[in-house]
Amino acid sequence: MERLRAARRLLHYSSSKSLFGPRSNPTSAEHPLRRSASGVWYWCPYIADQKGRFGGTFWGPTVGTGLGKTIRIQNRRFGSLAATIQRNPSFSTLNSDDISYFKGVLGEKNVIQDEDWLLSANTDWMRKYNGSSKLLLQPRSTEEVSRVLKYCNSRSLAVVPQGGNTGLVGGSVPVFDEVIINMGSMNNIVSFDEVSGILVCEAGCILENLISFLDNQGFIMPLDLGAKGSCQIGGNVSTNAGGLRLVRYGSLHGNVLGIEVVLANGDVLDMLGTLRKDNTGYDLKHLFIGSEGSLGIITKVSILTPPKLSSVNLAFLACKDYSSCLKLLLEAKRRLGEVLSAFEFLDNQSLDLVLNHLEGVRNPLPPSMHNFYVLIETTGSDESYDKEKLEAFLLRSMEGGLISDGVLAQDINQASSFWRIREGVPEALMKAGAIYKYDLSLPVEKMYNLVEEMRIRLGDSSKVIGYGHLGDGNLHLNISTPQYDDMILAQIEPFVYEWTSKHRGSISAEHGLGLMKANKIFYSKSRESVQLMASIKKLMDPNGILNPYKVLPHSLSYG
Amino acid sequence: MERLRAARRLLHYSSSKSLFGPRSNPTSAEHPLRRSASGVWYWCPYIADQKGRFGGTFWGPTVGTGLGKTIRIQNRRFGSLAATIQRNPSFSTLNSDDISYFKGVLGEKNVIQDEDWLLSANTDWMRKYNGSSKLLLQPRSTEEVSRVLKYCNSRSLAVVPQGGNTGLVGGSVPVFDEVIINMGSMNNIVSFDEVSGILVCEAGCILENLISFLDNQGFIMPLDLGAKGSCQIGGNVSTNAGGLRLVRYGSLHGNVLGIEVVLANGDVLDMLGTLRKDNTGYDLKHLFIGSEGSLGIITKVSILTPPKLSSVNLAFLACKDYSSCLKLLLEAKRRLGEVLSAFEFLDNQSLDLVLNHLEGVRNPLPPSMHNFYVLIETTGSDESYDKEKLEAFLLRSMEGGLISDGVLAQDINQASSFWRIREGVPEALMKAGAIYKYDLSLPVEKMYNLVEEMRIRLGDSSKVIGYGHLGDGNLHLNISTPQYDDMILAQIEPFVYEWTSKHRGSISAEHGLGLMKANKIFYSKSRESVQLMASIKKLMDPNGILNPYKVLPHSLSYG
Repeated sequence: MERLRAARRLLHYSSSKSLFGPRSNPTSAEHPLRRSASGVWYWCPYIADQKGRFGGTFWGPTVGTGLGKTIRIQNRRFGSLAATIQRNPSFSTLNSDDISYFKGVLGEKNVIQDEDWLLSANTDWMRKYNGSSKLLLQPRSTEEVSRVLKYCNSRSLAVVPQGGNTGLVGGSVPVFDEVIINMGSMNNIVSFDEVSGILVCEAGCILENLISFLDNQGFIMPLDLGAKGSCQIGGNVSTNAGGLRLVRYGSLHGNVLGIEVVLANGDVLDMLGTLRKDNTGYDLKHLFIGSEGSLGIITKVSILTPPKLSSVNLAFLACKDYSSCLKLLLEAKRRLGEVLSAFEFLDNQSLDLVLNHLEGVRNPLPPSMHNFYVLIETTGSDESYDKEKLEAFLLRSMEGGLISDGVLAQDINQASSFWRIREGVPEALMKAGAIYKYDLSLPVEKMYNLVEEMRIRLGDSSKVIGYGHLGDGNLHLNISTPQYDDMILAQIEPFVYEWTSKHRGSISAEHGLGLMKANKIFYSKSRESVQLMASIKKLMDPNGILNPYKVLPHSLSYG
Repeated sequence: MERLRAARRLLHYSSSKSLFGPRSNPTSAEHPLRRSASGVWYWCPYIADQKGRFGGTFWGPTVGTGLGKTIRIQNRRFGSLAATIQRNPSFSTLNSDDISYFKGVLGEKNVIQDEDWLLSANTDWMRKYNGSSKLLLQPRSTEEVSRVLKYCNSRSLAVVPQGGNTGLVGGSVPVFDEVIINMGSMNNIVSFDEVSGILVCEAGCILENLISFLDNQGFIMPLDLGAKGSCQIGGNVSTNAGGLRLVRYGSLHGNVLGIEVVLANGDVLDMLGTLRKDNTGYDLKHLFIGSEGSLGIITKVSILTPPKLSSVNLAFLACKDYSSCLKLLLEAKRRLGEVLSAFEFLDNQSLDLVLNHLEGVRNPLPPSMHNFYVLIETTGSDESYDKEKLEAFLLRSMEGGLISDGVLAQDINQASSFWRIREGVPEALMKAGAIYKYDLSLPVEKMYNLVEEMRIRLGDSSKVIGYGHLGDGNLHLNISTPQYDDMILAQIEPFVYEWTSKHRGSISAEHGLGLMKANKIFYSKSRESVQLMASIKKLMDPNGILNPYKVLPHSLSYG
């Protein structure tokens, strides 16, 4: 009887008008640094006014920019990382002849030495990492990238390729004085084939612009990210970005059909195929997908885009335990099969955090003791049928005891409010205090054990929460404390990496290694594999000028 | 009115009992060489008794095998290829100490010197290529593969890794006296996770056995091939096999989550991750997917398998021109979206060939002048709904003039008979005379132009037919002549490769390069790309012992 009542609530959830307001754009919600139309980064006060400690970082004084915007800069106090890395002494230092050469190639206005501009380009969006580059270049063509790299290689000038600078591991900003090569001026769509759905575009295209372009053509991008308003497709491909659509459309290794890339010596590798099938030799493009700009600079991308499907449905569900979440996932894969497009989860503690720290967010379920919450989204081509199908699945799951309670969004506003809960967790965490963030892939059945073990380990000193892309086996483990504390960090690390390694997980599911985890690669990759990576790096970039100090352990990178 | 009548026929095609018999197994239909339970290849008389010329090859005398089977061997007359390749003089020649060493590592019975056994292992299934190896090894573990390769590398003994030996480009047999490392004894399933659908198995597992295993678990392999009864998963991954399910599930670069591979020097690279997301360093596994055993020997594979969906529907349709086929493809992607699982096409000439040369095959449509035929398959989770959906789509397409006529299979026997037409084309071609076969990827809108241009070029001397995986942009271009003729070949090549190259196509969509097209790689890949491939080969296999003379141009491989 209780079950039936629950089922009724599931199916007849009142469609009152916009209970919680429209779905927020995760870009504005999560990215304090944003880019103006002129390409200049500015500080978004939405997050800036928190002024909180974040991972041991203290926000510094306000600094004026050249365009009348203000940004806050951070004093560099991030642990002892900077102290342990030495600038590679084989790199040259920029001189006036270099500047003249670049002006000759790119034109005066694309050779940026403006201090304020450089200040923001030197700083990552978390304001956790900042370099001291004196030069930003804005090439407008592959040929210009090629001439720039050829020159830098001959002069042993280190470079950092930069897209939207939305990365989370310090991969897209200089560590020392590397020349920044910003790809934002290469932002043209080259071609779109509406029969095959294949898009070819330059690397600097902003993801959201591509999404809009395709929307008009009746197609979608196979990836969607919180940072879509700023991130660029070249950066997405270079970092093998994951995101919300991976469970449905797979990774970029499957969707990217071709790339054009400039190697360290300036050679252009034209691998810009637009073919779904091509078995002629080694498929080299995969080396560049996810290598974080350390093997070459991607200048163009060819990508397979799926047709847009009109019918989207979303349910917000409660489960009594993690095992029920897993069974529900299995059932959803089997019964929703071809229409399943997202399967996200968050624990009770994550929901509490969101409800306590974000304004206007409410729990769509009546207050009760549920330990886990799941969002299931379906995307298909038939509105009435797809909804019926999801409803039947939910009823069945509820009757089978896998779901304790749940609601189905009746309109786009409700769907937005459900997504706001899941996507609001990072923002709520930032408001709650200091955070230790881990982005892990783990075998799905063991995934939540880590959260529980961490709770036992840390006791009352911290709040341990787990959420993420359950459908992809991707856990976002976050430890929230009132303030940053080395003692707590020592209890978390290396335990969290060792635990992940023991279960053959990945210490970076979708964020990459960048500067932050370059030395931690051995937790997820064998010594033989890393040695081979280093040999390939040496082969392709013998002077090590491309995005130095990142991805590979410093012991193998140079010296 | 006529359209309506056509639509009625479409929907009310009589479901008479098994008009054409059950769907033939493409393995038996296409593979003259088959493997007995003991691992010995034998000649399947089904095709052997054709005794026809095939691509300049004459079938030779019958030879007895050690197990009482008989096989026919081929005199080596295949063009001038053998004459142009010289055995790499830096390779050693096998001696008795080598044999003793291998017996010590693998045990006596896994070191095969039996002449008949070697005869079949030296010959590819088309009987187009044959080597003269004196030794076949059957390792049973990764460690054994490692010890064998370490030894071979130290002795400069060349090796050829061999799976099911079902390749079409001479990649899986020795060219000279390379040691054959057959993976068939490593055929265990290591694990299967029914929540994530991730299968881990050894490289020697036969694809059909994996399909059966998964079927019992409620899952399917994301790839399905005509050769499934013989081919092994390690070979599939090494050659990046395509097949029938690619349009739905994508390529192995997207589905393979991890591999274990033994390098030329015996080092084992453990990249056997079971994670959907892992961004820790360069994703090296992709180097091995499709490198045809020239960079390492794959010993284990981890693969993401989709849940089995119960509802499959198939339509056989006629279109008046190629442009209608393209529009139909676009509409199918948009309207069938999530359930579309195959979109194959064949031209009128292909159908004629099948009807004329294969017994028991009939045209399911009333005789009429149609230029093209399309098979559309849907796979979903709801039988009645999926069928309705396909029917509605077909009616609409017929009313819109995209389809001229069509039938929908009413049962599995009819579905089999429709598939038999499409899958019977290669067999019908073999019966028709000599064939020149090309497996091309081309931009889909230009694909059929090549067939038409070739017809004009060759005039009445040949029959030019086009069929293939339209949904993937993969054309199988075949030229059928009464007998092999160098004059005709000179009219086809290099024209076909140049045409493909001009349109940025691939000269090998799914078959690989092997020995056959190693020197033709430049038609599809730039000089810079091939040079980088050769540098990577040199880095990873400095003595060049792994599958020599294949994949890369001979000028870059050694010497």
